[in-house]
Amino acid sequence: MKRILVRTPKEGLVDITGAVEGALEGHTGLVYLFVPHTTCGLAVQEGADPDVAHDLLQRLSELAPRLHPKDRHREGNSHAHLKSLLTGVHLLLPAEGGRLRLGRWQQVFLAEYDGPREREVWIRPL
Amino acid sequence: MKRILVRTPKEGLVDITGAVEGALEGHTGLVYLFVPHTTCGLAVQEGADPDVAHDLLQRLSELAPRLHPKDRHREGNSHAHLKSLLTGVHLLLPAEGGRLRLGRWQQVFLAEYDGPREREVWIRPL
Amino acid sequence: MKRILVRTPKEGLVDITGAVEGALEGHTGLVYLFVPHTTCGLAVQEGADPDVAHDLLQRLSELAPRLHPKDRHREGNSHAHLKSLLTGVHLLLPAEGGRLRLGRWQQVFLAEYDGPREREVWIRPL
Repeated sequence: MKRILVRTPKEGLVDITGAVEGALEGHTGLVYLFVPHTTCGLAVQEGADPDVAHDLLQRLSELAPRLHPKDRHREGNSHAHLKSLLTGVHLLLPAEGGRLRLGRWQQVFLAEYDGPREREVWIRPL
Repeated sequence: MKRILVRTPKEGLVDITGAVEGALEGHTGLVYLFVPHTTCGLAVQEGADPDVAHDLLQRLSELAPRLHPKDRHREGNSHAHLKSLLTGVHLLLPAEGGRLRLGRWQQVFLAEYDGPREREVWIRPL
Repeated sequence: MKRILVRTPKEGLVDITGAVEGALEGHTGLVYLFVPHTTCGLAVQEGADPDVAHDLLQRLSELAPRLHPKDRHREGNSHAHLKSLLTGVHLLLPAEGGRLRLGRWQQVFLAEYDGPREREVWIRPL
C-alpha cells in the first residue's frame, strides 16, 4: 500500500488526481484509494468549474451545521464526522497506463471537513 | 472494461440489474461498476415497491433543492452534483454464474439526478 | 463469500470490526464487505468516543425524519431506506495479517436504521 500526503485547508475539495496518478507507475486496471481518517472523505466530482465545489461545500454545511444543540461529542466536529459518513472514505477507480480513466468532467478529491491538516491517502493498484 | 448505455428520465432510479447481468458472461466473483458522470450515481436499493424510489427522490430533492440562494455554478444543477456526491459513482457487488448475488429486496439502480440523458455504466468483472 | 450475523438494536452503529477480523484467517490485502439489506449500511467511522455515533444518528434522523408527509411506501421505513442510500451497502478495506488496517480512530460499523433485526454481512478477501 502506497501513501501520499495531502495538505488541506480548513474545509475544501482538494484535487488529488495528479498526486494519485503519480503513484500508479503505469498501472492498468483498478486503483483502490482509502483515507485513514474520520472527518474527511474521498469523492469523484466535477473539477472543471470550481464553483461546483463551492456549492457542494455550502450545501453540505447546511445539511451538517457546525453547531447542533443535541451534539454530545466534545471535540465540536460532529458536523465533519457526518460529512465524512455521507461522502465515504474509499474509492475504487479505473486506471489505464498510469492515468486514472475517469469521465470527461470528473476529478478525484479529498474532501476536507475539519482541517487544516496533513492527511494520508492510501493507494493500491488492483 | 465493458460499457452499457442507459437512457434516463429527467430524474429517477433506473433499474439496471438486468443490463449489468447481460455483461457478466457467467462471471463468478465481484463486479465493479462505475459511472463516468458527475450528476448521477449508482445505488443498491429496494426494487420490489416502486414507492421506495418515489420517497427517496422526494426526500433527496428536499435535502438538495434545485434552487439555492448561494449557488454559484451557472449550469443550475448543483443540486444534482450534491445528490451524486451523496450517492457515489461506483459499486462493487457479488456475482455468481453471471447473475448479481444480492439481497432479497435489492436491485441495482442508476440514480439520475439531471436527465434526461444517455448515461454510460462501465463494468468490470473482478 | 463468508457470512457473519449481526444482532442489531432499533437504531445504532454496531461495531463489527472484531467480527469481521474473525473471518479474515490471516489475510493480507483488501477485504470486501457487503450487506444484502436495504435499510442498513456499512460505514467506517470513529469508534473511540461513543458520542460520535450518538451525534451521527441524531443528525441523520433530522435529515431523514421517520415521518414525511409525501411518503408513499406503506411500510413506514422510507427514512431508513434513505439513510441506507446515504451510507452505502459495501466497503473495501485494507487488511494485514488477519487484522483490518484502519486509521487510528476508525472502526467498522453496521449502521442499523430499521431494527432490531439479525443482519448478514458478507465478507470476501481480495
